[in-house]
Amino acid sequence: MEKIPILKMGPFLLVTIQVDLYDRLALSLEADLVQMVNKTGARGVLIDISAVAIVDSFMGRIIGNIASMSKILDAETVVVGMQPAVAITLIELGLPLKGVYTALNVERGMNLLNSMIQLDEDDEGEEEDDDRIHSE
Amino acid sequence: MEKIPILKMGPFLLVTIQVDLYDRLALSLEADLVQMVNKTGARGVLIDISAVAIVDSFMGRIIGNIASMSKILDAETVVVGMQPAVAITLIELGLPLKGVYTALNVERGMNLLNSMIQLDEDDEGEEEDDDRIHSE
Repeated sequence: MEKIPILKMGPFLLVTIQVDLYDRLALSLEADLVQMVNKTGARGVLIDISAVAIVDSFMGRIIGNIASMSKILDAETVVVGMQPAVAITLIELGLPLKGVYTALNVERGMNLLNSMIQLDEDDEGEEEDDDRIHSE
Repeated sequence: MEKIPILKMGPFLLVTIQVDLYDRLALSLEADLVQMVNKTGARGVLIDISAVAIVDSFMGRIIGNIASMSKILDAETVVVGMQPAVAITLIELGLPLKGVYTALNVERGMNLLNSMIQLDEDDEGEEEDDDRIHSE
């Protein structure tokens, strides 16, 4: 199984990382995710790393890349489910995951994304009408 | 990484299967899922197998087991994201996944679970008040 599945959940995409991200897999995840954001018009990306016991600088960079790419396509990235030990390691490695939002679990991550979208729409006030066209 | 993460999304649990389920992993997934259903009071379990290219009789049995166990704890199981080739193989193997609901993707699976819960509540008409107790 060579692909990490990307699940669409309403306006968000959810990725669960369960396997070690080696170079090629990481690159294909980046490419797939950006394409999915583009195709689905997703407003947020949730990356669940609750199964990840070790985060090294490579993985930190991949997450940072995904966040930057998504940001350009107008989607925010939230990393969820980080294990306490991973948080300790990241800071000790000097990798504070700049530019990436984090949340304790998927539900809180979704709430965070929802509130960000809401803020966005309040600013712009024009994107909410898409789903409101009914046949009668 | 030896554990398949189980994500709580509202009243449902979501499991994404990305790695080959060998014996021990499958058994620990079964145990973890049943415990999570018990702990969170989840009403539905979504199993995403979009990354699974090959389903054999062992995996079919595991999915059937999970569905039966969850059912006893009052949670329905929906398998989502099955690849067309997998559907062909399952039928050719004579494994029609009896007792398991399926849906094309996570969103449709959630809709299916929501409608099942709704039906349930209409029948019983007593479970909706849990969150309605406010401080004033």
